[in-house]
Amino acid sequence: MHIGLIGLGRMGGNMRTRLRAADIEVTGYDPNPDVSDVTSVDEMIAALPTPRTVWVMVPAGQITDTVIEELAEKLEPGDLVIDGGNSKFTDDLRHDKALDEKGIDYIDAGVSGGVWGLDNGYGLMVGGPTDQVERVMPVFDALRPDGPRDEGFVHAGEVGAGHYAKMVHNGIEYALMQAYAEGFELLEKRSDLLKDVPGTFKAWQRGTVVRSWLLELLVRALDEDDDLSEIEGYVEDSGEGRWTIEEAIMNAVPVPTISASIFARFVSRQDDSPAMKAVAALRHQFGGHAVKKSED
Amino acid sequence: MHIGLIGLGRMGGNMRTRLRAADIEVTGYDPNPDVSDVTSVDEMIAALPTPRTVWVMVPAGQITDTVIEELAEKLEPGDLVIDGGNSKFTDDLRHDKALDEKGIDYIDAGVSGGVWGLDNGYGLMVGGPTDQVERVMPVFDALRPDGPRDEGFVHAGEVGAGHYAKMVHNGIEYALMQAYAEGFELLEKRSDLLKDVPGTFKAWQRGTVVRSWLLELLVRALDEDDDLSEIEGYVEDSGEGRWTIEEAIMNAVPVPTISASIFARFVSRQDDSPAMKAVAALRHQFGGHAVKKSED
Amino acid sequence: MHIGLIGLGRMGGNMRTRLRAADIEVTGYDPNPDVSDVTSVDEMIAALPTPRTVWVMVPAGQITDTVIEELAEKLEPGDLVIDGGNSKFTDDLRHDKALDEKGIDYIDAGVSGGVWGLDNGYGLMVGGPTDQVERVMPVFDALRPDGPRDEGFVHAGEVGAGHYAKMVHNGIEYALMQAYAEGFELLEKRSDLLKDVPGTFKAWQRGTVVRSWLLELLVRALDEDDDLSEIEGYVEDSGEGRWTIEEAIMNAVPVPTISASIFARFVSRQDDSPAMKAVAALRHQFGGHAVKKSED
Amino acid sequence: MHIGLIGLGRMGGNMRTRLRAADIEVTGYDPNPDVSDVTSVDEMIAALPTPRTVWVMVPAGQITDTVIEELAEKLEPGDLVIDGGNSKFTDDLRHDKALDEKGIDYIDAGVSGGVWGLDNGYGLMVGGPTDQVERVMPVFDALRPDGPRDEGFVHAGEVGAGHYAKMVHNGIEYALMQAYAEGFELLEKRSDLLKDVPGTFKAWQRGTVVRSWLLELLVRALDEDDDLSEIEGYVEDSGEGRWTIEEAIMNAVPVPTISASIFARFVSRQDDSPAMKAVAALRHQFGGHAVKKSED
Repeated sequence: MHIGLIGLGRMGGNMRTRLRAADIEVTGYDPNPDVSDVTSVDEMIAALPTPRTVWVMVPAGQITDTVIEELAEKLEPGDLVIDGGNSKFTDDLRHDKALDEKGIDYIDAGVSGGVWGLDNGYGLMVGGPTDQVERVMPVFDALRPDGPRDEGFVHAGEVGAGHYAKMVHNGIEYALMQAYAEGFELLEKRSDLLKDVPGTFKAWQRGTVVRSWLLELLVRALDEDDDLSEIEGYVEDSGEGRWTIEEAIMNAVPVPTISASIFARFVSRQDDSPAMKAVAALRHQFGGHAVKKSED
Repeated sequence: MHIGLIGLGRMGGNMRTRLRAADIEVTGYDPNPDVSDVTSVDEMIAALPTPRTVWVMVPAGQITDTVIEELAEKLEPGDLVIDGGNSKFTDDLRHDKALDEKGIDYIDAGVSGGVWGLDNGYGLMVGGPTDQVERVMPVFDALRPDGPRDEGFVHAGEVGAGHYAKMVHNGIEYALMQAYAEGFELLEKRSDLLKDVPGTFKAWQRGTVVRSWLLELLVRALDEDDDLSEIEGYVEDSGEGRWTIEEAIMNAVPVPTISASIFARFVSRQDDSPAMKAVAALRHQFGGHAVKKSED
Repeated sequence: MHIGLIGLGRMGGNMRTRLRAADIEVTGYDPNPDVSDVTSVDEMIAALPTPRTVWVMVPAGQITDTVIEELAEKLEPGDLVIDGGNSKFTDDLRHDKALDEKGIDYIDAGVSGGVWGLDNGYGLMVGGPTDQVERVMPVFDALRPDGPRDEGFVHAGEVGAGHYAKMVHNGIEYALMQAYAEGFELLEKRSDLLKDVPGTFKAWQRGTVVRSWLLELLVRALDEDDDLSEIEGYVEDSGEGRWTIEEAIMNAVPVPTISASIFARFVSRQDDSPAMKAVAALRHQFGGHAVKKSED
Repeated sequence: MHIGLIGLGRMGGNMRTRLRAADIEVTGYDPNPDVSDVTSVDEMIAALPTPRTVWVMVPAGQITDTVIEELAEKLEPGDLVIDGGNSKFTDDLRHDKALDEKGIDYIDAGVSGGVWGLDNGYGLMVGGPTDQVERVMPVFDALRPDGPRDEGFVHAGEVGAGHYAKMVHNGIEYALMQAYAEGFELLEKRSDLLKDVPGTFKAWQRGTVVRSWLLELLVRALDEDDDLSEIEGYVEDSGEGRWTIEEAIMNAVPVPTISASIFARFVSRQDDSPAMKAVAALRHQFGGHAVKKSED
């Protein structure tokens, strides 16, 4: 099997390595010549056997749109594009339509695993036509973790299903992280009583109900910095968490923990909270409670 | 009518003024001689006609306990103690029992209105024996706002009912404040589109569904400081908000907005969030996402 | 002043009545001949003096789109369309563009007040060009509540600002309602202690921090049905609540109470909760805890 | 090593089996003669070598109190009581004090693992004096999972630390379960797009960020009932979840996901929601929105 791979950043670069280790031939293109195998998308396309398979691994949104448009122009009927980035599932429908007009097939692939995927393999959720999914199964098998295929890979439905599953995966991920984080704060707060916070997390790794991979990562983090004093409580969020809430709202699905998780991230990035200024102002107005004057 | 009043701080002092304006005789005691009418509780008691009525208006908790203990020793059977502070309703049961052993009656009175109560009157929620509530009705009538009695006063039940009602009142208050505050932040955030945030709040005062006294106070606050830039988003909370959550948990009542309001206050007082440090650490571990290094 | 009014349902019909009472001439059109003044939009347009003013009061979304399209075709340069429905503020930008191509002006007007607006007047938040806002001020003055103009009306900014303000208004409204509702449940739950739930709400109407118009409505509801036993806890939600969350997410504004309010409504409409089935299933798996078998 | 074990229910019974499999001698007492090794606590005590070790595995609260009181009377100085039940950490301080007066030592042990502990071992979090913890380490080693000791056991601090850690563990557990449950509902809701919900969860078991033991249990549950149609969304909660919130409130720790999880359980058990009745009543009052009449 020989595929093209556009985007050789942290994720794409590792995936190329893992694919090659599994004897999948990869011609990778990236605007950065230091990591690229070829000097252009055209050169990459020319190198691929037909029907071609091109895996796109670039940031979701405008960049993915541009790459898909270019591929729609340059590929041929029967070829296949796989979007492995973090695209919104509604974008997939658009991409699929644009490619379908040229007779090109499309698969959306949600990919989980982060920097650990290189060694552990990547969890894969894909949507698209069954025949194409089967044709490129060697690629999925090379990327996914060892073990039974259905424990690290799912063909979840038609186009869009893969990124929908990944979106929900990330929504869950946000809430799981927040859950452990609240637990961390509760343990830290009573360090008068509970003397060994890192040891407590460490001891939860076997036998308990809360054991998980995220817990293991928290143990690693606490091994490196036992009270996290070197790190600031400032957390970004990405599109998938936000889309999860939007999709929940649109479908009347209550998601109190996922939304609480994303709101906590919003707050973590604020120097001062306009909302809490308003609450402080109200308390001052009705109760004569002192307010803190801003230093700005 | 002639009553004793222990505690002449911001609330108690205003209440004395309002009572006297309604021709209720008040002998007030406070440890601060600048505001006290008498030099001791004994002197205050000696000045009161029997059966005596003593209104206690001191901070909830230890101080209230101490005052009630002193009154239990010094008052006589048939006398009445009214606790108008922000005591926990479970404390009322304790106070009532201690006083009852001496034949002294007890009423708990939840009082709302803040610094505005002097002019507007105070919303009153009381619990206790009907005959005593009726005996001191002139006091309640003097303190409550003008208008029909049942729109500013309720005899809500036996001892404890007044402070229970006040506790729930404050829980609601927290969530109302947070609701307006979230709206403020939403309006501020799109000041590119919505050019007049203070004017918008001002315009909500008549005809809209969200009109309220708190809204009027927010309009006042924005009149003084139109973007609240002079105030810090740092908000204290008091016992009653916390007790509301505890009581909700104990009785399996879901209170998502009240709890969200109190959590927002907790966060507002944190220099850095241990929980969000943990989330940042987790993101770094699995995704190699950059973290902000603490400057400490 | 003489305006056209499209849509004579509960809101539009009442607004026509209020406008006429203020000596604004109104030619109303509605597909329902029982309430319509004319038999067609064309007839309505023909009746209006130039430059014409047409107030649109139809359900947001597809129907508003259709009406605006029709007016774009049939009105003339210099005319004005006011959308007083609950449109999304992003739709306003679209409507304004379509009308602007024909030289027709556009104002978006958020209208609050419900069935009470007929008597009390409607809170108005408008966006659009200043000259047109000033030209039709007699209409706004007729619709808004008595009292100072700026306490019931705001020109909040350019096109879209009116509906943005209304959207946020409704988001706040959701959270305010939920706050009182949580308080109601807390009071009800301890009716062993607090004997008079309706009386407690009634007594909050004067002097307290939580007094508001919504509180007065809850008092009315409890007057009619003192424990709300005749009503089911099933609550719809409308677009504006959902858009508030979407807008908050898009702008990284934390809205924990508004989102909690909308999630509570989602849950209220579920016969059974898929999420809680999953939690029950998990508890059963790890703890052998009994589950309730579905009766379906 | 030879210990006494009071309480041979689902947890205690399995623990006896696991201890004996590790060559720890166990004399178990339970009021149920079918499972008890002896006919009385006295007989159990008489069978134990000194200094005696008695592991208490009974429901938290009143029953634990009674058992501890009995042991305080019947054991001798130098003996040790271990409470392995789900007691509140504040109860531990009381129990420790009562036993200490008789010279008896006390260890609190939080135990996680549910019905799986028999085979997998139990995660253990203990608090108490170091010398006693070391003396009974063979017992902890027998109960904990295979692997490094510190990945399934922690001596977290003085008396109370074990149950505090377990309380926080359970709070986290609630939120983790809710996170997966919200994800399940999101996937189910779009089964038009995502055709294989159980397969998606199954595929998350390897390589993904959300892999965990709870996820594996959900996969098992979906293997048995692929849409959970046989199970009702009705979920109990236990003391530890509630105490987590209380402790958070008392220490000003924001716990939005843990509280959301427990509130979701509260709601799941309500036939109708008083709060949502109030919201429905309010909507009806201001907007004339239809309400559902209760069928009761």
